[in-house]
This record gives sequence, C-alpha cells and structure tokens, in this order.
Amino acid sequence: MCDACVMNAVKEKMLSRRSLFKAGAAGVAATALGSGMTGTPALAAGHGSVLDMTHELHAGFPTYFGEPGFAARQVFNWDEHKFNLLELTVNEHTGTHIDAPLHFSPDGQSVAEIPVENLVAPLCVIDIRARAAQDTDAQVTPDDIKAWMDAHGEIPAGACVAMNSGWSAKTATDAYRGTDDAGKQHYPGFHVEAAQMLMEGTGAMSIASDTLSLDHGISADFATHYAWLPSGRFGIENLANLDAVPAAGATLVIGAPKHRGGTGGPARIFAMV
Amino acid sequence: MCDACVMNAVKEKMLSRRSLFKAGAAGVAATALGSGMTGTPALAAGHGSVLDMTHELHAGFPTYFGEPGFAARQVFNWDEHKFNLLELTVNEHTGTHIDAPLHFSPDGQSVAEIPVENLVAPLCVIDIRARAAQDTDAQVTPDDIKAWMDAHGEIPAGACVAMNSGWSAKTATDAYRGTDDAGKQHYPGFHVEAAQMLMEGTGAMSIASDTLSLDHGISADFATHYAWLPSGRFGIENLANLDAVPAAGATLVIGAPKHRGGTGGPARIFAMV
Repeated sequence: MCDACVMNAVKEKMLSRRSLFKAGAAGVAATALGSGMTGTPALAAGHGSVLDMTHELHAGFPTYFGEPGFAARQVFNWDEHKFNLLELTVNEHTGTHIDAPLHFSPDGQSVAEIPVENLVAPLCVIDIRARAAQDTDAQVTPDDIKAWMDAHGEIPAGACVAMNSGWSAKTATDAYRGTDDAGKQHYPGFHVEAAQMLMEGTGAMSIASDTLSLDHGISADFATHYAWLPSGRFGIENLANLDAVPAAGATLVIGAPKHRGGTGGPARIFAMV
Repeated sequence: MCDACVMNAVKEKMLSRRSLFKAGAAGVAATALGSGMTGTPALAAGHGSVLDMTHELHAGFPTYFGEPGFAARQVFNWDEHKFNLLELTVNEHTGTHIDAPLHFSPDGQSVAEIPVENLVAPLCVIDIRARAAQDTDAQVTPDDIKAWMDAHGEIPAGACVAMNSGWSAKTATDAYRGTDDAGKQHYPGFHVEAAQMLMEGTGAMSIASDTLSLDHGISADFATHYAWLPSGRFGIENLANLDAVPAAGATLVIGAPKHRGGTGGPARIFAMV
C-alpha cells in the first residue's frame, strides 16, 4: 500500500534528520526571543490580550453522569511509526463544551448550525461567588441580572451571559460534582427565571456556567435547559478562567465544534480583553 | 438512580412544556429581528466581520488515510429520553484540524500546550490557485513567499501562513484526495524549502493548507511535516474559505482542541476581517 511505503521511507530517513530537528528546535527559541513575543497577540485594535477560558480535557475531567466522557487511544506512535496519532472517544457534553439547541429540543439547531455571529459574543459576567461559597445550590436570579445591568448598562445583542460561581477552581476535587449521600449533585446554575428574563428582555444568545450544568446540580427538571435551548439559543458548560475577565467589556470567541447533527461538544473558548 | 429519576420527571413534564417551546421559538425570531442583527458581531474595533474557515465535519469528509475519520453514535434521543446526546469517535487528523508539534516529533508540544498567543494569528494568504489548476502536485515555494512579502511587507510575528490552492471547493469530490491508479494522492502543499524559509527568516508560527496535508499529496517523505512540526510550530489542514479573506490584514482565531497529550484534532477556526 502506498501509505505504508511512505511510512517506511520516512523511518529510513529519521536518523539523518535528527540533527535537523535539533537545529530547528534551537531556531524557534531564537525566533521567539528575537520577535519580542510578550504574550500579546495580533488582536484587533481595542483588545490587548487573549485569555484561554477552556479547561484541559482528559479522561478524569468530571462529568454530569459521573463516568468518563473522554478517552484516547494511540493508533500510531513515534517509536514504531515515526509519528503520533490518537483516536478519541468523546461524549459531546464533556469538558468545556457547547449545549446546542438540539441537545434539549426535538429539532433545534445542531452545533454546526449555530450562527457564526453568535460565536463572537460580548461577555457579561454575573459574579455569585460570595453567595455560592455559602450555598452550593445557589442560582443566578433575575435580581443578579438587574444588578449587572444597573452597574454596566444593557446586555448587548448577541451577548453571552456567564455565571462566575467560583467552581472553576474545583475541577480536580469531588466538590465540583458535589455529590451527596443520596447521589444528588450540588453546584450552582442559572434559575429558569433568569433565563426567561434574558430571553424576554435582552438580546443575549448564550449563557455560560462554570459548573457541570446550566441548571444547578440539584435541579429535578432541567428547567433552564428546557427553557433556554429550544428557543434557539445555546449554552456553555464548564467555562474556565472567569476570575480573570472583567464583568463587562470582554469579547468571547467560542470555538464550537462543527460536526454535522451535533448536540454540542468540547469547544475552545477565548476571551479577548 | 438519581439521573433516571430526573429523566422520568422530565418526560412527564414534556406535554405541558411543548406550548412553552413554541412560544420560545417565536420569541427568538422576534429578538433577532428586533436587535437588528446583520451578521456583524461584537468584534474589537478594527475588525468588522467574522468568517468561518471551518468545514463541517461528518463521516464522509475525505481523509488522508481514505477511511472515515469521524463517527457519531446517538446515546440519548429525544423520543425516548427527551434530550439528544451523541458519542463521537474521532481520528484526531480529520476535517479542519490542527497538527500539533507532537504529531511529527517524539516529545513536542501537544495540542493542549500550543501557546494561546499563537492561536490568534495574523493571516498571510499565499494564492497558488492558478498554478494548482494546472498542476495538482503544485507546492508553495520560497518564491511565492517572497512575492507575498514584496506585495505586503514582512510576515508578522506569530503569523499563520496559509496556502490557497482552490482545493477547498473540492471536498465533496474525488478530486480532493486526487488518488491515481497507483493509489498515490495528488493535491497541493508546502514545499519543504518554503517551510524552512518561514522558520529561518520570519516569525510565522503556523502554516495552513486547504488540502489534506501540509505536504503535497504525492510527497514520499512528509518532508514539510518533519521540518516544521518538530521546530515547535504547528499546522492546520483542510482550512476552508480562504477565497473570502484578504491576502493580508485578517486575524485568524484558531479554536484548537485542548485534550491532554493530543497530537492535534478538529478545530473551529474563524477569520476576523
């Protein structure tokens, strides 16, 4: 087979190429220094830095259902094949990920159909850390949204309204799922009335939680999922790094996956600040 | 089990909620109209629009190895469970995707380790469409890069240098892989000397092809992969929509996946123009 021939040719060349690799590695260090890279990317004027809002995904990342949502199998490896390649098995709703309208509706938009315009979103951060520290079942309420608007003005069209509950720091601990003796989960989320207020009174097109769910963990009915997603809006769960962004003024760039018919999936999400 | 209880509670509530869904769907249409959304997102000043540079991923998307690189299995479905959820099986190097340094090196950066700064990149587009239309084995050469620099100036630090060969329009046809009777593939890519020139003389940190590989399809040795990736730089393959962006001045936002130890993976990529 042609591909196998290529692999053999590659292996034979590896020894002679190793010195080249070494030179290449030295070269990149010099380039990085020489170009004065300081962590400031080539952003549009007005945004000076990019922040990563994405948790690293791995087999041990907590999931709503409690079982691993991600696995990787090494199909090709360096020692044997002179290149590395993994095959991934992924529950769509794992890690920092999107809930597309189709996740909680019979025929809503798939993750591939979310309008691109809504994947670049003014970010509004609702900070409930103080309340959540006292109450693991805390929820974002209409009053929280009103307080944000009193301080920062209207929620912009296409906005993503994000809950910062402080949960992002807990992903490596059992507290992230907060499972009690009865098997019920405890972490903050959006109250359905907050979702309804955003739908009826603002142009917000997405909500984001820094926990495993848009609803708080104790929810018996996924009320917020069922109110928000079938309306054609989408959600983000397990968002990271909200402590590092301002309450208003950042722009979220939401690298949603784009697989046909997807109900969501792991996303790479940046904040331009 | 608690989760099952939740699901049952949800099912019982569905009938009464369906009218709410309907109202919600009508609501979103009104919001979209009311807010005057015209496709212009909330971008930083200086960039007026966002373009999607990502092909839709599905089981039939062409792959280097010729076999499907993506499969989806429906684990939960609306009729039975009142929500939808898929489990995905993904060859990392499928669809519009990243080649991390680790893909072609023993211990290079994984896709999760690519510096975020390099995922927001000035986009330099090398147009070889005319030549590629005559020669399916065409390559980006040092002369092409020189011509770009003569027209547009230095290649900026952190840039992504992309080849527009016109192949993006062929994904639904056999011409995308261009397999001949001997099983060899034919499509354009980067000549290794172009990669070396970018490494030695510019601050480019990524190259992108609109074909299945950074090397042209006929390559017998993956010379460009082996020169570029072990240097700590990364690649993008199957980039879409390059016809729609200027040769210089756009900013690419590269939503690389962030799974631990990954050698690459499907990415959501936008151009801010």
